[in-house]
Amino acid sequence: MPDAAVYQGHAAVRAGILVTGTEVLTGIISDRNGPWLSEQLAGLGVDVLGVLVVGDRPDDLRSGLAYFAAQGVSLIVTSGGLGPTADDLTAEIVAGFCGRSLELDAGLEGRIAEIVSRLRVRFPGVDPEALREANRKQALVPVGASVLEPVGTAPGLVVPPGDGAVGPTVMVLPGPPGELKPMWDSAQSVSAFRSAIAGAPELRREMIRLFGIPEAEISVTLRAAAEAGIDLSALEITTCLRRGEIEVSTRFAPAAAGSYDALRQFILSRHADVAFAPDGETVDQLVAEALVADGSSVAVAESCTGGLLGARLTERAGSSAYFVGGAVVYSDEAKTSQVGVPAALISSHGAVSGEVALALAFGVRERFGASFGVGVTGIAGPGGGTAEKPVGLVWFAVSSSDGRSLVRSVKMPGGRAAVRERSTTVAMHLLLRVLRGEGDAPA
Amino acid sequence: MPDAAVYQGHAAVRAGILVTGTEVLTGIISDRNGPWLSEQLAGLGVDVLGVLVVGDRPDDLRSGLAYFAAQGVSLIVTSGGLGPTADDLTAEIVAGFCGRSLELDAGLEGRIAEIVSRLRVRFPGVDPEALREANRKQALVPVGASVLEPVGTAPGLVVPPGDGAVGPTVMVLPGPPGELKPMWDSAQSVSAFRSAIAGAPELRREMIRLFGIPEAEISVTLRAAAEAGIDLSALEITTCLRRGEIEVSTRFAPAAAGSYDALRQFILSRHADVAFAPDGETVDQLVAEALVADGSSVAVAESCTGGLLGARLTERAGSSAYFVGGAVVYSDEAKTSQVGVPAALISSHGAVSGEVALALAFGVRERFGASFGVGVTGIAGPGGGTAEKPVGLVWFAVSSSDGRSLVRSVKMPGGRAAVRERSTTVAMHLLLRVLRGEGDAPA
Repeated sequence: MPDAAVYQGHAAVRAGILVTGTEVLTGIISDRNGPWLSEQLAGLGVDVLGVLVVGDRPDDLRSGLAYFAAQGVSLIVTSGGLGPTADDLTAEIVAGFCGRSLELDAGLEGRIAEIVSRLRVRFPGVDPEALREANRKQALVPVGASVLEPVGTAPGLVVPPGDGAVGPTVMVLPGPPGELKPMWDSAQSVSAFRSAIAGAPELRREMIRLFGIPEAEISVTLRAAAEAGIDLSALEITTCLRRGEIEVSTRFAPAAAGSYDALRQFILSRHADVAFAPDGETVDQLVAEALVADGSSVAVAESCTGGLLGARLTERAGSSAYFVGGAVVYSDEAKTSQVGVPAALISSHGAVSGEVALALAFGVRERFGASFGVGVTGIAGPGGGTAEKPVGLVWFAVSSSDGRSLVRSVKMPGGRAAVRERSTTVAMHLLLRVLRGEGDAPA
Repeated sequence: MPDAAVYQGHAAVRAGILVTGTEVLTGIISDRNGPWLSEQLAGLGVDVLGVLVVGDRPDDLRSGLAYFAAQGVSLIVTSGGLGPTADDLTAEIVAGFCGRSLELDAGLEGRIAEIVSRLRVRFPGVDPEALREANRKQALVPVGASVLEPVGTAPGLVVPPGDGAVGPTVMVLPGPPGELKPMWDSAQSVSAFRSAIAGAPELRREMIRLFGIPEAEISVTLRAAAEAGIDLSALEITTCLRRGEIEVSTRFAPAAAGSYDALRQFILSRHADVAFAPDGETVDQLVAEALVADGSSVAVAESCTGGLLGARLTERAGSSAYFVGGAVVYSDEAKTSQVGVPAALISSHGAVSGEVALALAFGVRERFGASFGVGVTGIAGPGGGTAEKPVGLVWFAVSSSDGRSLVRSVKMPGGRAAVRERSTTVAMHLLLRVLRGEGDAPA
């Protein structure tokens, strides 16, 4: 929980998010729609009351809708339950909830049939009569609702409360995120949706990212900012530790922009050494931009991260412009044969050492002909730790073709996956520092 | 939504999960506790009504508890809101909800103080008076509740309804998953928790995994099984497409084991070629076991996956026993210099081709001295596609030291991240096939 959240309750318009799907509820697949919709709604100035995940049972859907309605929300967004089979019930239940009857939309039925006939080519064995029935089910629309055209085969809906009724408008979206997101975009212009969120205040959202201090220090800084006379009362500040970085996220109305600018300046000057992203940039973005700006390139030699650092550096489209390649050198032999780490260095200092990390960074830079080389070697656990070199100890090095280098070690908490993941973050930050000119020149 | 879910409503004991935290609600961090708790409860035969995520607002916590109580659940499990700061309110609100007053537990206060004093060494600047106050807040316990000893600094609670009151028992757990999970384990023996879920039926959960068929075919298979006389009425079957594999997950009471065995046999014989895991094993586990059993080893050469395949093969503890290393060869030059792919092969067939995939697999196996080599080369997008070689086209090859090889291409849907992720799954399956003896012998 954020230490220093300051809630002012700006937003007058509230919404609820209802995610349906037994496979989501039981943890078989994880829900990505709830958090995504929550962020979108927040961006529109809508205050999200909650995200409720229920299974595919009619009563649970109904009670979920009733729960949000009882809290006085103006809008409920649902995800899931729009498929062609009998357990896909959302449209029918929402119609009942809004006091509207279902009617066949013949035009929509035709458009769905067309989409399905294109898909059928891939699955020729399917019974055409069953298909026709499924189409028809998906084309049943509550009277007075706006139809959102299918992205997959399922249409979405915006259903205002029935004539004379009072209650929230319900936006009905499909479950697959690849269908939900474009449909959300197209729903933005639907007038029933615009009316449901009318009155939501315009809000800005800004972020500062810091790396290398405990979260508690940010609380102290926020208190100090208030004591220094900066007005925090109109700022909704959340601090969060994510992937080893501290994110200070602030929402505010345009009128409070002056207060935010003062706070931003206060944080940046107090934490100049660790506030690497004054406007919320990710370290990945900053590394990529710095490499592109210089026309330089990078290669990596990884041991305990097993390829995760290369994978992270190639996550972005266009990374082939600066990422040359990498060596995953798990065994000592591979470190020597693939990157040229002297075997004597490994035997005298151990594979997990600053010396070997630097030899990995230097060797991979030379072998791949890159401007920068990064070396990572550590003990991800759970086995392999000793008193002197415990599980979680990881050595990092960055070597630059102009002769600079940076070597650091970190003892990380957590299990194997956490140590590996966190190691990529530390490596990215060290690379960024060298890209920004840090590092020791050769003796 | 699963096509073929069959719900019988076995469970008489229902529960709700209430996740608190504004940073979870707003999507800043994703909730892992809800799905995890849901799975644990299902494993105990408890029917989970829903997972509700709300922010850190007292009214929203209260209405969330009231929502689940109104549905008649016997148990509510909360996660989050147990920190030392003023916005951490769960214990207080749950006490009120259960009709119990808060009382200082002096022994607990002492134990928390001890934990905190050890942590203080890392942050020497913190005000000791503020700390004492925070300790005291965390040691306030509803009268009659069972305390779950802190894993971090926050204790958990099991709070039965107050004397004479009717309502659910509330289990209060901290938000960090690393604290929540061990505390859940220790809560299993608490009698107030055992009574809350008394009467939940014993349920078994089994899974079959398949790779390489559309989800719709499983629906057809389930219908065929019913037509063949297998009694599905006592089986709760969910099918789900995850990471490119189909998971058929079934829950059933021990009395229905015979029906499940018949269904399992029916599916396995009908889909012998694609049902790679008859008892729910992951492909990662099967690959690791096969490599260990043979005393063999693997090395990988990856282009578009950028290190993800190496990272996946080293996810498991003990992978150094069989994973030698890998080459991330993004540029054509790297493919040639690091793995020995002939430059002429690249210029005549293109970097994304079966020939280059095989040369990568062969080359990396030879250079790293491994028993098996895997090569992956493709177009992850969004740029770089052509009519002949579109975005999403990926070539795979596996080369074995006994001369066998397997070369395949797949045209994958989805964006860059999906193509890269899915590619690692395809590569794992091809490797498993070669480990199981498939592959062409040399001409």
